[in-house]
Amino acid sequence: MTDLNTLGEIGLIERIRQATASPTHPETRLGIGDDAAVFDWGDSYGLLTSDLLVEGIHFDLTYVPLKHLGYKAVTFGVSDIAAMNGLPVQITVGVGLSSRFPVEAVDELYEGIRAACQAYNVDLVGGDTTSSRSGLIISVSVLGKVPKNLITYRNTAKPNDVVCVTGDLGAAYLGLQLLEREKQVFLADPNMQPNLSEERAYLVQRQLRPDARTDMVHELRDLGVLPTAMIDVSDGLASELLHLCRQSGTGAVIFDENLPIDDQTHLAADEFKISPVTAALNGGEDYELLFTVRPQEFDKLATNARITAIGYLTADPTQIVLATKAGQQTPIRAQGWSSQLGA
Amino acid sequence: MTDLNTLGEIGLIERIRQATASPTHPETRLGIGDDAAVFDWGDSYGLLTSDLLVEGIHFDLTYVPLKHLGYKAVTFGVSDIAAMNGLPVQITVGVGLSSRFPVEAVDELYEGIRAACQAYNVDLVGGDTTSSRSGLIISVSVLGKVPKNLITYRNTAKPNDVVCVTGDLGAAYLGLQLLEREKQVFLADPNMQPNLSEERAYLVQRQLRPDARTDMVHELRDLGVLPTAMIDVSDGLASELLHLCRQSGTGAVIFDENLPIDDQTHLAADEFKISPVTAALNGGEDYELLFTVRPQEFDKLATNARITAIGYLTADPTQIVLATKAGQQTPIRAQGWSSQLGA
Repeated sequence: MTDLNTLGEIGLIERIRQATASPTHPETRLGIGDDAAVFDWGDSYGLLTSDLLVEGIHFDLTYVPLKHLGYKAVTFGVSDIAAMNGLPVQITVGVGLSSRFPVEAVDELYEGIRAACQAYNVDLVGGDTTSSRSGLIISVSVLGKVPKNLITYRNTAKPNDVVCVTGDLGAAYLGLQLLEREKQVFLADPNMQPNLSEERAYLVQRQLRPDARTDMVHELRDLGVLPTAMIDVSDGLASELLHLCRQSGTGAVIFDENLPIDDQTHLAADEFKISPVTAALNGGEDYELLFTVRPQEFDKLATNARITAIGYLTADPTQIVLATKAGQQTPIRAQGWSSQLGA
Repeated sequence: MTDLNTLGEIGLIERIRQATASPTHPETRLGIGDDAAVFDWGDSYGLLTSDLLVEGIHFDLTYVPLKHLGYKAVTFGVSDIAAMNGLPVQITVGVGLSSRFPVEAVDELYEGIRAACQAYNVDLVGGDTTSSRSGLIISVSVLGKVPKNLITYRNTAKPNDVVCVTGDLGAAYLGLQLLEREKQVFLADPNMQPNLSEERAYLVQRQLRPDARTDMVHELRDLGVLPTAMIDVSDGLASELLHLCRQSGTGAVIFDENLPIDDQTHLAADEFKISPVTAALNGGEDYELLFTVRPQEFDKLATNARITAIGYLTADPTQIVLATKAGQQTPIRAQGWSSQLGA
């Protein structure tokens, strides 16, 4: 018998992918291996992504309000569609509940789901509910579409492409640290009031109620920019960059001082004695978009405040490095998901 | 605070449906309320269904081999597509695993998933895996298609339509009783060998590895028969008949002696002192198709050994009854899912 931890998530998915039969329906253009499956629907590509969120692994109900959790579950799926440069159309949400949830809690969860559906303009078309003997379980499947000439994969980047990221990174991770600290304070003394000051609101909001960047999909289209490759930042920039480079067969140089990090993230990182660069690289849950563009295309983006160029791709797939101002280069490594399996 | 059990599954789904915004995308023809959501894809309707299977609620790993469980999870989703008179095209399967599962167990689960995908001719296009702190969780989403002129809903049956069912009913429930009994014997004395004789193989197979009736979808098309309404029998005939009648605004008379019940089911029912009619009505997990046809269409089906006429629809929606040979009529009631929520 082989322990699952020896494989890790990527190893396990690769094992499943290799053992999976090739598609037999000609319309199935891509199965496992990108942010979403891709179907040829004639005038456009259809996209399908499914995610599973499990209490104790993906969220802690001690500090996650159910309304925010509902919103975040939808964000989770929609972000995968955005990563293909697509827009969501329909969503199904399955919920596993234990009897400890009153009806009002279910209402609150669905309030958040509906708010997100409205924000992303996606139709909620399925509402499976079931019992669960233990924690809360949420499964989300999103169907989306993208014009055929605009689809972006992970494996189509080229050396010299400029590496860009939307928004800022690491805030969700510092938000999590703040919430975890408050949880410990609360557990020690349930009468304590939470100490989440106004200035920290951004970090907490990035953790509890992140937005998928469908707005950037629209913006890229408006700017007339087609990324050469794209992926969403759910597990942390390092992990996603490694996926993109491995699947495209490229290396990368990322400049640490270019990483977009909010002032609040810097302040909280100081307080928690965490490197803000580490938070940006490995924190995860930012739901920003990591994409690459041809160098000559970058001019169209250069003045956009919501997009930051953080480096470029190289021809050597063995060199995926973080470069400091002083010229030092260190290999970028992903923090594995496998540690979670120890649960 | 209101206890979830006061609502039950149907009440909860209805609450969610009522609070859900109307679809904004013109292609979304139907959201919540049938076996699958329906999308207008131009030359055909697209279908999407999502289901969540949770250890301790939907399956017991004491006696369910993982390979069969993988197969059954796919059956679960494909059956919903068949209920719309459609055929499956793509499927995503999400799996939540705890570290107690070795890699070999995951392989076994996926072996069953792949066998089912081959049997139903559906492409496995997504393989999300995550950790789970407690039991095994499987989420399944199936995309299917149906020619526009062949789609069958639940709410379009009419009085005088003949009520038909494919295959036989109640066997999966008796299979479950056999497995539960062997489990108790095993728990009392782990050295005991299971006493599942050859003659019981059919019942156990119907519980552990049921097939969705995509074959009957093909057969109905070959026979040139279009049901006026259709639903799959997952929760038991009674529950599904009540859905069909309520949504169509009809009543029904079902003849108990017409219910298709296998000889093995009869024998096991005797042994367990369970009424075979109750097993057929409320046992569930048969994954057969319950459908209605116009009386003049029924001639095309009358000699088909895999289809049984069990009654007819009436104009009075308050009368949904089981009729005995002796002429007695008793109201048909569904056994609720709400009891499961007590978990």
